[in-house]
Amino acid sequence: MSRIIRTEPNAILSRAVEYHGFVYTPGALARDLAKDIKGQTAEALAEIDAVLDLHGTDKTRLLQAQIWLKHIGDRAAMNEVWAAWLPEGGAPVRACVQAELADPRALVEIMVVACK
Amino acid sequence: MSRIIRTEPNAILSRAVEYHGFVYTPGALARDLAKDIKGQTAEALAEIDAVLDLHGTDKTRLLQAQIWLKHIGDRAAMNEVWAAWLPEGGAPVRACVQAELADPRALVEIMVVACK
Amino acid sequence: MSRIIRTEPNAILSRAVEYHGFVYTPGALARDLAKDIKGQTAEALAEIDAVLDLHGTDKTRLLQAQIWLKHIGDRAAMNEVWAAWLPEGGAPVRACVQAELADPRALVEIMVVACK
Repeated sequence: MSRIIRTEPNAILSRAVEYHGFVYTPGALARDLAKDIKGQTAEALAEIDAVLDLHGTDKTRLLQAQIWLKHIGDRAAMNEVWAAWLPEGGAPVRACVQAELADPRALVEIMVVACK
Repeated sequence: MSRIIRTEPNAILSRAVEYHGFVYTPGALARDLAKDIKGQTAEALAEIDAVLDLHGTDKTRLLQAQIWLKHIGDRAAMNEVWAAWLPEGGAPVRACVQAELADPRALVEIMVVACK
Repeated sequence: MSRIIRTEPNAILSRAVEYHGFVYTPGALARDLAKDIKGQTAEALAEIDAVLDLHGTDKTRLLQAQIWLKHIGDRAAMNEVWAAWLPEGGAPVRACVQAELADPRALVEIMVVACK
């Protein structure tokens, strides 16, 4: 039984969970929900960078991503920020669909599975 | 090649799939879809308890959860049941978005990845 | 640190990512989005067959599937194709919810996690 490492668990979720070399992150939102889709995407990705770093890995080790957009029409703008953030040749698999998110101002939510 | 253990596979899905110490559960719904959001959440979580038990693990070993709500406004009520169910300090990562579910009476669906 | 194998990474996503015996595929769409739900489901599953084959595995090794339908009412028709495709006794866990997809003509998107 390998050890599970949980970063900053609260009553609802952990900021990251690591098990057996896999690092799971929760749906990341922007801190500033007043920003537009590009700004919110950048902030969500910055949170993912931060939590991967806490687990000794980074965006070169992404396996799977799920992206939810409040407006699927924001996909092209989100993709610009996403593609610029990804390391060349290092894209994970991905699904991106439209969904209403927890906060009505939230335009994008991103959850990944990475590894060490 | 490790062995895959499937619990109660039917034509569409298995009730759980285990591989290499990871236990995957399908989107769990309440049995009684006449219940309100709290009642449906409790029943979905009871199903998750049951399937994890069948695989020799439990809710202290949750890695990732996905929650779909028919009405995102039910999030606070669902969270009450969810937080009471989770072991202290043992929350998985999580994403929770709004989606129309298979049965129009279904208010919540929960899918997890756990480990042994 | 195990090696990550990425098949056909582009700027946005990879066609598959393999790590530690796990094979992740992206949300697969039909090639011909003029087809109906059964036709689109068959094409999405053919893409999954193709990418699993590239990683030396196949649909007998499915762990988890996520299915998004533009119209949840298409679930029964999609399930016919899905059930016929699955090996007997080999169903993964699954969640299937309604979501607006990237292309307005897309009726179904399917993402899986398999193993070798």
